[in-house]
Amino acid sequence: MKRIRVFAPGTIANIGCGFDVMGLALDGVGDVVELTLFDNKDEMAEESCNCIYKADACSLCIKNSSNVKLPADPAENVITPAIVKMCQAYSARQERPCHLHIGVEIQQKIRPGSGIGSSAAASASAVYALNAILDNAFSQEELVDFAMEGEKLISGTPHADNVAPAIIGGVVFIRGYNPTDLIKLPVPDNFYCTVVHPHITVSTKEAREILPKAVERKDAIIQWGNVGGFVAGLLMNDLDLLGRSVKDVIAEPYRKGFIPGYDDLKEKLLSNGMIGVNIAGSGPSVFALSKSEEEAELARNIMEEHFSSLNIEREVYVNKVGKQGARVL
Amino acid sequence: MKRIRVFAPGTIANIGCGFDVMGLALDGVGDVVELTLFDNKDEMAEESCNCIYKADACSLCIKNSSNVKLPADPAENVITPAIVKMCQAYSARQERPCHLHIGVEIQQKIRPGSGIGSSAAASASAVYALNAILDNAFSQEELVDFAMEGEKLISGTPHADNVAPAIIGGVVFIRGYNPTDLIKLPVPDNFYCTVVHPHITVSTKEAREILPKAVERKDAIIQWGNVGGFVAGLLMNDLDLLGRSVKDVIAEPYRKGFIPGYDDLKEKLLSNGMIGVNIAGSGPSVFALSKSEEEAELARNIMEEHFSSLNIEREVYVNKVGKQGARVL
Repeated sequence: MKRIRVFAPGTIANIGCGFDVMGLALDGVGDVVELTLFDNKDEMAEESCNCIYKADACSLCIKNSSNVKLPADPAENVITPAIVKMCQAYSARQERPCHLHIGVEIQQKIRPGSGIGSSAAASASAVYALNAILDNAFSQEELVDFAMEGEKLISGTPHADNVAPAIIGGVVFIRGYNPTDLIKLPVPDNFYCTVVHPHITVSTKEAREILPKAVERKDAIIQWGNVGGFVAGLLMNDLDLLGRSVKDVIAEPYRKGFIPGYDDLKEKLLSNGMIGVNIAGSGPSVFALSKSEEEAELARNIMEEHFSSLNIEREVYVNKVGKQGARVL
Repeated sequence: MKRIRVFAPGTIANIGCGFDVMGLALDGVGDVVELTLFDNKDEMAEESCNCIYKADACSLCIKNSSNVKLPADPAENVITPAIVKMCQAYSARQERPCHLHIGVEIQQKIRPGSGIGSSAAASASAVYALNAILDNAFSQEELVDFAMEGEKLISGTPHADNVAPAIIGGVVFIRGYNPTDLIKLPVPDNFYCTVVHPHITVSTKEAREILPKAVERKDAIIQWGNVGGFVAGLLMNDLDLLGRSVKDVIAEPYRKGFIPGYDDLKEKLLSNGMIGVNIAGSGPSVFALSKSEEEAELARNIMEEHFSSLNIEREVYVNKVGKQGARVL
């Protein structure tokens, strides 16, 4: 058997303006999985596993030893479709079809529904781990494609704005799909992201369904102006331009309703020097970008105070924007 | 009196993906105006002028000595609202209100309706000329704002995707308005643009009205993925990435109907190595981006042949993407 432990970071999708096309990796928070490739089914059977998921190219056993509750049925775990798709692709590349026996132990887990890419960190860490064991048989783009199967399970749409930065790190821009076209943007050294996760449950699906299917053309134009500004801001190392671009006329107006006192919180953060504030992914987490650790800590205090005054439990993470994505531990 | 001659280049708005947020300057084609600031109305009266337009901060006389027919009424000329707005702003900055006496002679003119920014070249050259006479009293962003008044007259909406590159040169990205936020993107040395103007008249207004007011969210996402890819392509000097991003799901599907055989022409150009092909601005001109003069000339031949076989008169311009915008001659 071969065994490996992998970390994949939490991520902020959209980053204010890049709905479905952009995400960033956080530096300190993420999932840890230990993945085992067994030599055969007997070896796999020796490990106690309640429930083995069988597909044509693999048998998969997922154990959760994190302190976060996850669905018991492997068919409902995002890791499953990602690993199944990857095994199918691997099998198809061999001279004759093969069947892999895989065990995944989830050892550390971002709380689901937090808006910092909990599902993406899970599927990203699993596919990254399997790829490492398979001598990097697949490219980063292919891993992103596999991991997106997990996002499809959760939200109904395969999107890469969390899984791509979870795998690749930094700020990743997804130009398009079929094939997946990823651009890793440069990240300045002093680029901080403070994230608050208020304990309000909003599912990705619910957060997507609240959005209208069509966008006024004038709003779409505002949005792609900001997308271009954000990309240019990073590539030109102009964080003020980037900050001016962290604006969202597509999702924020609808999703902020899930977050008590959102407008006040945002105003307070911006007037205290944060360069950009918005909803992390589909929410309910809120992020603030800043240029120093002091400002990032100030954002933490403002966020703590805001939700404390509303009697809402929360966690706050202060992170640099992580240059690294998934990695072997 | 003070007198100055100014050139402002033709421009390609949208450049495939950046509807209303992006445009590029062409290197060899444009408008030439000669602008005179008279010392008083008597001096102005000495010059023969059929029709003086009077506003609170200026009196304006426009003469057309180009070989292109233009509206005789100055109220219908894009130069008028641009210069009037500029004079109002200039007057407001003086200790006491002032009134400028201005003559503009249009000496060389891009054919209106060509889709390469004819109206923008006119208003850009005029405001640039007046600013040069006024010792650069205004910033580039302010000049863009004034020139946009001309676009508003023509199309009903003030947009900067032609006037900004006509004034500033290169490829200009407009992050947003109020205030106008412009990003001048770097232009590689070997970056060519071939443009064909088939003699079909499509007004900007008509070309805008054919577009639906709302965009499917999924299409908007495709579009802003390409906008980010285009911006990154220029900033990373990756013309292949840029080429993959020259795609339009917003305007091209509707506007291509104005251009006979558009799909065939595009396919022929792309299969012959052009990195991106699309409709210039609101059409009916079509542009092809390429990486060498040879390819740019090949594009010319393909375009000539295409419209010749359809018995449609046309002009073809082969240009480098111009790094310079408006300039004193």
